[in-house]
Amino acid sequence: MSVETDVVLYDAETAQTLDYAPDGILRHLRTGEYTFETGGVLPDVVLGFETWGTLNEDASNAVYIAHALTGDSHVARGLSTEPGWWDGFVGPGKTVDTDRYFVVSANMVGGCSGSTGPASLDPDGKPWGSRFPFTTIKDSVRLEARLADALGIKVWHTVLGGSMGGARVLEWAVEFPERVKNCVVVAATAESSAEQIAFAQAQSAAIRLDPDFAGGDYYANDNLPSAGLGLARRIAHITYRAEPELEVRFGRAAQEGEAPVGSANLNRGRYQVESYLDHQAGKLVGRFDANSYLVLTEALMSHDVGRGHGSVQTALARLSSVNFFVSAVDSDRLYWPEQSERLAKALPNPVEVRYITSPIGHDGFLTDIEQLGDALAEQIFS
Amino acid sequence: MSVETDVVLYDAETAQTLDYAPDGILRHLRTGEYTFETGGVLPDVVLGFETWGTLNEDASNAVYIAHALTGDSHVARGLSTEPGWWDGFVGPGKTVDTDRYFVVSANMVGGCSGSTGPASLDPDGKPWGSRFPFTTIKDSVRLEARLADALGIKVWHTVLGGSMGGARVLEWAVEFPERVKNCVVVAATAESSAEQIAFAQAQSAAIRLDPDFAGGDYYANDNLPSAGLGLARRIAHITYRAEPELEVRFGRAAQEGEAPVGSANLNRGRYQVESYLDHQAGKLVGRFDANSYLVLTEALMSHDVGRGHGSVQTALARLSSVNFFVSAVDSDRLYWPEQSERLAKALPNPVEVRYITSPIGHDGFLTDIEQLGDALAEQIFS
Repeated sequence: MSVETDVVLYDAETAQTLDYAPDGILRHLRTGEYTFETGGVLPDVVLGFETWGTLNEDASNAVYIAHALTGDSHVARGLSTEPGWWDGFVGPGKTVDTDRYFVVSANMVGGCSGSTGPASLDPDGKPWGSRFPFTTIKDSVRLEARLADALGIKVWHTVLGGSMGGARVLEWAVEFPERVKNCVVVAATAESSAEQIAFAQAQSAAIRLDPDFAGGDYYANDNLPSAGLGLARRIAHITYRAEPELEVRFGRAAQEGEAPVGSANLNRGRYQVESYLDHQAGKLVGRFDANSYLVLTEALMSHDVGRGHGSVQTALARLSSVNFFVSAVDSDRLYWPEQSERLAKALPNPVEVRYITSPIGHDGFLTDIEQLGDALAEQIFS
Repeated sequence: MSVETDVVLYDAETAQTLDYAPDGILRHLRTGEYTFETGGVLPDVVLGFETWGTLNEDASNAVYIAHALTGDSHVARGLSTEPGWWDGFVGPGKTVDTDRYFVVSANMVGGCSGSTGPASLDPDGKPWGSRFPFTTIKDSVRLEARLADALGIKVWHTVLGGSMGGARVLEWAVEFPERVKNCVVVAATAESSAEQIAFAQAQSAAIRLDPDFAGGDYYANDNLPSAGLGLARRIAHITYRAEPELEVRFGRAAQEGEAPVGSANLNRGRYQVESYLDHQAGKLVGRFDANSYLVLTEALMSHDVGRGHGSVQTALARLSSVNFFVSAVDSDRLYWPEQSERLAKALPNPVEVRYITSPIGHDGFLTDIEQLGDALAEQIFS
């Protein structure tokens, strides 16, 4: 089966149909009208996605990789010039071996990396902005099922993701248990916790506090809500790291040439850790839309695989046909290891939580994923 | 020795000199001109303070209690109508027994509870606002030494505080080792860590992001930077609690009558934990000045008893004459127990860290301080 015959792919810039499937190059799929879980409707949802490798004859080698909150579909470099965010983990001869598997990753609806989001235009040519529908993790999965249909994939060999990506692939198993053979959930939970919601609220409040946010309809204005988005990222980034790592890297050192213990008034220089967070904030502001950050953050707050099934327990108890692999980062203090243990215990078949050992905290799911290589080779990609 | 004969006390509202020392009633001391550690100068710094009990003949029964970031001098109710924030711990017959000890607590310079701060007026009658000097923990201690002088206290029997109050009393021992007999440091460190600085930066950025902040000179305006101060408090409050406590209290429950998993657009209702944080934010906004929050937060960022002594180690090694009592909350994830262990190890005499056992996190230093009663009775107030 060839991918090209089954799906209307096009290049967003030229709007030309593509007749080839290059590894790691962003393509698009028109999925048509979509009614969101909580009632919103968009007339035409486009999904940006990438693939690596070749789908085999019986379509049994397809692997779906879901990105995290500010991630995107560019998991591995492939034929593009840009490095992927999991290059050491996904590629020819890697743990997720694109010589053997057909790997797919889609940008989440509501985002700003190729799928329809708040910056996309309505039929009258105006950005959706504040009118963009409330989006849930279930919405991302239901739209990705349309992509799987278009690609000729009835059953994923494996769905795999970390952090919000882990939430997304767990929801894949809950929404479509018959379409998921293996489910790999890294540093994620079955439902967002009170603390995760609390930190997320602070982030969305930061964006809304920015006077340039303009209620979400800022696209035509001179100034974007960069300061608010940057503050949201600062808060988030602290929770993605662990205290000992920040202490060893930065301690209370002053940024070079600056005096954080101020002088005669409130204007002071920065500590190194502040400069580091400024840098993280600036990087995100340069590549991400504040409305998308809001939409996806609130989608993550809504994460609850139990919704519609009575409870998390009931939702997961149905999944005896799915082979689960659950992993946590030992130093994670946003998606605490205890939460992964709780998830594993709620699954119908016995699952042992595999630990990524890292001083780095939650971000260990990105930096140290290769620690899972042997276990995944044995249990999933054997 | 009577208090009244040695100190110019006055009532701030009537500017009349007081000739009595009622327990738990706010009084004021003019300390005169003060040059701050980093160079700023104020012509006349007033300290608001309260006392409980009676100073004995040889002035050997004086206890200083230092409040935390948004605390104040009203430690115990005394003769006032307002409850104190440590009423179960300080009072007649309590662990800090005001029948035996003369207890003193001052509002920190830079705050907004009776001591000179950014909202105070300059000699021309304009609020200091953005011109208020950068303030450090050392500044608070040096001014409190003037208060001790005025009260006739050469040596504190004990200085005691939690969180930023712990930082302040540790700095008391470092600045004036000959004036401190016992030093009780609860849930605090010898220097602010990279992570504490990072969370503090996010809070100060939130206040500065508020369009009503107006660079700090907002006192004459119609609107105060309440949203920014509220967001700062939200961020802080999450770090003051512990994940399991939030989970048990709130989980992902919706606030009554609200729908946090939204409808067709971005306007959604709140989770209970969001409503709780809104409430915490609202409470602080009603009683605290945003500039004071900034000044005191940046003072806490600057906390480093080693400054001026070469290192923390060197500063603490000099303190063999001081009897230390170090305590941590076992679930604290802002002032991690490991940091209290590190502080204890850096002291010249052996000190065992005493633990407050609480699921609540950092705020356990407020809610569960009475757990230290027996140990303090034995080691400090025997």
